Amino acid sequence: MLKRNQTMRAVALTEFGEASVLTAHDLPAPTPGEHDLLIEVHACGLNPIDFKVRRGALAKGRPMPIILGFDVSGVVRGMGSAVNGFRVGDEVYAAPSLVRNGANAEFVCVDARTVALKPKSLDHVHAATLPLVTITAWEALLQRARIQRGETVLVHAGGGGVGHVAIQLAKLHGCRVLTTASSAESLALCKELGADVVINYRETDFVERVKQETGGRGCQVVFDTVGGETFDRSLDCVAADGRLITCVGTPSEKIAAKLFRLNATLIFEFMGAVGVYGVRPESHGEILRAAAKLVDEGKLKPHVSRVLAFEEIAEGHRLLEAGHVTGKLVVKVK
Amino acid sequence: MLKRNQTMRAVALTEFGEASVLTAHDLPAPTPGEHDLLIEVHACGLNPIDFKVRRGALAKGRPMPIILGFDVSGVVRGMGSAVNGFRVGDEVYAAPSLVRNGANAEFVCVDARTVALKPKSLDHVHAATLPLVTITAWEALLQRARIQRGETVLVHAGGGGVGHVAIQLAKLHGCRVLTTASSAESLALCKELGADVVINYRETDFVERVKQETGGRGCQVVFDTVGGETFDRSLDCVAADGRLITCVGTPSEKIAAKLFRLNATLIFEFMGAVGVYGVRPESHGEILRAAAKLVDEGKLKPHVSRVLAFEEIAEGHRLLEAGHVTGKLVVKVK
Repeated sequence: MLKRNQTMRAVALTEFGEASVLTAHDLPAPTPGEHDLLIEVHACGLNPIDFKVRRGALAKGRPMPIILGFDVSGVVRGMGSAVNGFRVGDEVYAAPSLVRNGANAEFVCVDARTVALKPKSLDHVHAATLPLVTITAWEALLQRARIQRGETVLVHAGGGGVGHVAIQLAKLHGCRVLTTASSAESLALCKELGADVVINYRETDFVERVKQETGGRGCQVVFDTVGGETFDRSLDCVAADGRLITCVGTPSEKIAAKLFRLNATLIFEFMGAVGVYGVRPESHGEILRAAAKLVDEGKLKPHVSRVLAFEEIAEGHRLLEAGHVTGKLVVKVK
Repeated sequence: MLKRNQTMRAVALTEFGEASVLTAHDLPAPTPGEHDLLIEVHACGLNPIDFKVRRGALAKGRPMPIILGFDVSGVVRGMGSAVNGFRVGDEVYAAPSLVRNGANAEFVCVDARTVALKPKSLDHVHAATLPLVTITAWEALLQRARIQRGETVLVHAGGGGVGHVAIQLAKLHGCRVLTTASSAESLALCKELGADVVINYRETDFVERVKQETGGRGCQVVFDTVGGETFDRSLDCVAADGRLITCVGTPSEKIAAKLFRLNATLIFEFMGAVGVYGVRPESHGEILRAAAKLVDEGKLKPHVSRVLAFEEIAEGHRLLEAGHVTGKLVVKVK
């Protein structure tokens, strides 16, 4: 356990707004609740949800300062009375709740049921890139869309955080994977990860290409990680009886008109529901244990495009907001 | 087999429009294709899809006259060369393809893979009420939403065609069933079928009542068979991780805003996809065989509110268009 009244370095916001609201603070280290692990943060992944919460999403009415950072790899330094299965000193990784203080700090509290031992073959910097995107892709493809061997899966932004894990999971499950990307680094990553068809969407109309590649039928599973126009045009890539997944949740008036006749399913994938509604927290721990095994077997690899210093978190937000980050950005904290 | 050039009585349309376009014709009896059974129609159920196709849905570019009628019970009188498992004289029931000529006639051709022997305990009039609504409710609740024992299911229009089967299937699978209805006949039917909470939506706000009955959480499964405002307000009845099913396909701008944060799934249930896209026709035969067993065990009962004569098909359309039909309308053909 930590000393009483121990303080910690944190990057936090005291108001919602642009990246400039992220500032350095000395704050009290958190005290673990009944089900929590207190984790000493060694590294923290960044995700688009960071800047969305920074702008106010999911955070209305929360007391300031608010600490972001929803991916962590680190070492257990304490725990609540109801925790089982962990010991002080364990090296763990997790996706902290989106509606509690996160890991842009030296310490973070995370519901132990959502935590797993980190992959042994990865250091903290690489392990910290995996939890949020892996849980998102795993829930979406394996638990909800239930991809089957031989199915054709379209993954948008295959070079992105969720996308590059989604390609690997779909290939591991015997699917044919089509994917979209545009930067040279992302196009190369998609190929390296084994995508069967890599579509440079700046040069090729992805709807037409998908129709060509599927005999006009579309894909059984379409995973949109982008939203906006990509979502609307994805409606034209779904096969009969197909499943369209969005982890972005774009509003669209075209949803029913396109998907009803196809007898299709629209899956809204929001991995944060575990934290927001307190439902089935164990499911995240299970996914992270299974993912760690895949990583240690060499079957799942994170791609890190840049390691940032603790002082560069605001810069990380700006890069994510500009788009086209290949793989993941991660912050080395310790 | 029928004689060459045999004609048959049919009710058909030669233009799209109001119920008055349905007129009596003597037309050539159809010739079964390779996978078809030729069925002598004894009874034919009516469904809202009848008047939708009559107005032009799913029928653009089809040659006239068009024969509607997408529920049949009758006797096998012939078959195509690829048919297995049926004999001339078999008593069968089926949901004919929505994009071929239907059963408002003395004969209809139906893909044998979508057909089953009718329940022995029912006459043709009662058997003909089941296929389309049973396949719809079965696919929606059992195969796609995968209702689980102990889950709470909200069925809209529980006294309607799909609704009254949905209540029975959900109760058989150990779910708690909330349902909406308004006419005295429908309210009574919902209670008789074992719904746990019957909400008269004209007297009670169903969203408020659902919240009350579920501790504010909403229902794990919501089955909207109505559309329009009922669909929009159903978005407020879904629990986290829940599934919202529509067999109507209402456009709504609110879908993403409501369902994304809930980590919910939106299931568009269109049983006609089998006929429209030619995918997995066997699945309908399997459902109808399983349903016939449930009927013969006394576990699934159709509710017929009115039996119409062959000359009254247009009147049946008008009743369905006016809404509030309890259970099913069926036409005695032979």
